Amino acid sequence: MREAFHDQLDGIFADLSEICGQVEVAVREATKALMTGDVHTADQVIGNDKAIDAARERVDDTAFSLLSLQQPVAGDLRVIVSALRMATELERMGDLSVHVAKIARLRVPAVAVPDELRPTMQRMAETAEDMVRRVRDIIIERDVEAAIELGRDDEVMDQLRRRSFTELLSADWQHGVEAAVDVALLGRYYERIADHSVSVANRVVFVVTGDLPSRD
Amino acid sequence: MREAFHDQLDGIFADLSEICGQVEVAVREATKALMTGDVHTADQVIGNDKAIDAARERVDDTAFSLLSLQQPVAGDLRVIVSALRMATELERMGDLSVHVAKIARLRVPAVAVPDELRPTMQRMAETAEDMVRRVRDIIIERDVEAAIELGRDDEVMDQLRRRSFTELLSADWQHGVEAAVDVALLGRYYERIADHSVSVANRVVFVVTGDLPSRD
Repeated sequence: MREAFHDQLDGIFADLSEICGQVEVAVREATKALMTGDVHTADQVIGNDKAIDAARERVDDTAFSLLSLQQPVAGDLRVIVSALRMATELERMGDLSVHVAKIARLRVPAVAVPDELRPTMQRMAETAEDMVRRVRDIIIERDVEAAIELGRDDEVMDQLRRRSFTELLSADWQHGVEAAVDVALLGRYYERIADHSVSVANRVVFVVTGDLPSRD
Repeated sequence: MREAFHDQLDGIFADLSEICGQVEVAVREATKALMTGDVHTADQVIGNDKAIDAARERVDDTAFSLLSLQQPVAGDLRVIVSALRMATELERMGDLSVHVAKIARLRVPAVAVPDELRPTMQRMAETAEDMVRRVRDIIIERDVEAAIELGRDDEVMDQLRRRSFTELLSADWQHGVEAAVDVALLGRYYERIADHSVSVANRVVFVVTGDLPSRD
């Protein structure tokens, strides 16, 4: 029974890494839509979110059946509940990518991000995408070291967010209120994707070691 | 054993309604800080968030001990996992109140919301606070009807959010980029508090009926 339990648990983590791969595509494509004003790509991100939701529901179902059939004890129980929470957070990261795509879509054929903000916004997007990619590897490898490192690198996103505020609140901002609001909300969405990435990575640490790097 | 189980489950729901009461205070006081520029109130909201986090951890611990000791079957299992998710969402609503308080604090002794936006922002805040108050009653009474109604009323918040965008993107916006960014982010925070309220109410429906009003 213990062996069957761990096989099924491995199955859940394989599913989680797959969802994380779908989220990675969503973040990348939403950014592409944002930076190019490509409505087709934006629509794809929005349309593909259903698949992420469905994959999350499958993880839920598997986890519940595992809990019911195997009646795991305290430690294993916490591992499965962690997996449920990881699935919820990954789904949320997909939703945030959809929010980015929707801002891109609203501004078509223009581009939401003014030229002078593009370097900072591009770095925020790349940082978010990079964190999602690393989370995927962390889930696959159950890599505690990499997970702790990811938590430390979250500071990069905070710095970029502060820089974007400095830029859009500078006296020589020429792009009006709409672009400023777009940039502020986009920054918030990428920051939340980064936050969730750290949280998912922390749950991997918990699954492997039984302790969180910090309570979250 | 079944009776002990349901007593403990009632205890978890009592704790959840208490957390919801703390969140209601947080939303109300954060709004007060926002509308008056009162730094002391803002600091209180920020300081009190630790109590919400601690209360959430206690719910987690009780739920896990219930799962471990009682080994509930499928239906009861889903109820307890729902309670865990409700606790997570309530904690998140507390965090969002802190975000509102922090924007208020940043602008002290000024007030973040320009006069002409105050009616809309006040209505968003009141709508959020009202939803949190209703969620608390819904948790206490396990009131499925009220929960379904709450889901329908979420549309009010969407309308207010759209109105705030119309106002701040209007040609005669005189308050500059900083105020516009503040208003956009504040609107986002209140909207998320409303979203989580609906989600918590939906989980109550699930706990009582075994079905969600819609999958979330």
